Amino acid sequence: MTIYDWPTGPYPARVRIALAEKNLRSHVRFVTVDLWKGEHKTADFRAKNYSGTLPVLELDDGTFIAECTAITEYLDTLAGPPVLTGRTPREKGVIHMMSKRAEIELLDAVSVYFHHATPGLGPAVEIYQNPEWGLRQRDKAIRGMHYFDAVLKKQPFAAGEAFSMADITIIGGLIFAALVDLPIPAECTALQAWYARMQARPSVRDQLAMTIPAR
Amino acid sequence: MTIYDWPTGPYPARVRIALAEKNLRSHVRFVTVDLWKGEHKTADFRAKNYSGTLPVLELDDGTFIAECTAITEYLDTLAGPPVLTGRTPREKGVIHMMSKRAEIELLDAVSVYFHHATPGLGPAVEIYQNPEWGLRQRDKAIRGMHYFDAVLKKQPFAAGEAFSMADITIIGGLIFAALVDLPIPAECTALQAWYARMQARPSVRDQLAMTIPAR
Repeated sequence: MTIYDWPTGPYPARVRIALAEKNLRSHVRFVTVDLWKGEHKTADFRAKNYSGTLPVLELDDGTFIAECTAITEYLDTLAGPPVLTGRTPREKGVIHMMSKRAEIELLDAVSVYFHHATPGLGPAVEIYQNPEWGLRQRDKAIRGMHYFDAVLKKQPFAAGEAFSMADITIIGGLIFAALVDLPIPAECTALQAWYARMQARPSVRDQLAMTIPAR
Repeated sequence: MTIYDWPTGPYPARVRIALAEKNLRSHVRFVTVDLWKGEHKTADFRAKNYSGTLPVLELDDGTFIAECTAITEYLDTLAGPPVLTGRTPREKGVIHMMSKRAEIELLDAVSVYFHHATPGLGPAVEIYQNPEWGLRQRDKAIRGMHYFDAVLKKQPFAAGEAFSMADITIIGGLIFAALVDLPIPAECTALQAWYARMQARPSVRDQLAMTIPAR
């Protein structure tokens, strides 16, 4: 299978972490799509993924699967443990919800802030910006960090007792937040402690070494 | 199980259609949350669903599952056929992607238009509006209809050869679009024909009878 991505992007990081957890990395050929040149917005790329986002998985039969959670569900049902999307109906429902919540309340909000209230990918790519909306989403993302801090005060992982896709989505959000100088608030001690534990996982540590520039 | 919703809401319609398809309707107790009074934005409701959206499923053990796709995945893995979220890894991945795409490119875009560029739920509930963003999302939703029209020119259902959660998400989008006077463009003949077929399904017909006011 082939994955079209940008190796240091926060969304691609989610699928790369999932691949590492599932021990599937060696089965994938990566093709780089240059975000900074807007290659993900071309007609050619949008024929692969109408929404013009990365990453996209191409199966050997030519099927394209976009959206990180859809790709993760594909990989998770394809290969053996660890299970990232749940075993029982309740686990599946809760993981799905918490991953979506991590997108809405954190990762996607940070992304909108980046693309609308900062220079983003530069004027050639960011052809429309709504700075007021971007700043609202930045504030939403910071509230989201406080929400996940409260969740992680009560349980060890985002969706309960086990590592899952929901943790990976929060990690993607925090990778993106760090890139745009939105650190985890100091008072969010449970979120900080959880993130330190996440970074002890090889799948996360290796990805972070690639995406967070040394200071 | 209990579902908190607003019976005529476009998002709640998705779960009600899924329940009808799965023949689970009689297992559910419905609790009305009054959108027009902003009951979904209260602290009490946000303790059930941090994002403050409807519907929310409460299991008998007290677990809350929000997000239509998460609830649908729960219901689909709980009960027998028809399968709404796919059987094989490929089916699951493609249905998940197409449902998410229908949210991003159609349903959620219509919702943002409603809440930001029309009076929405009224001034007491819509405490912040960004009309420019709302109008951009309206235009995106209309482009989305053209995209799904192109998809449905090539295959009978949103995710391929069978009815799935992805079709339900588009139906939710078209229900919401009709409520805010965004009809399917006349030139989108494949989308029109598909929607007529959808309305022949009892699950959809019964829901539409409830949500679309007679003119």
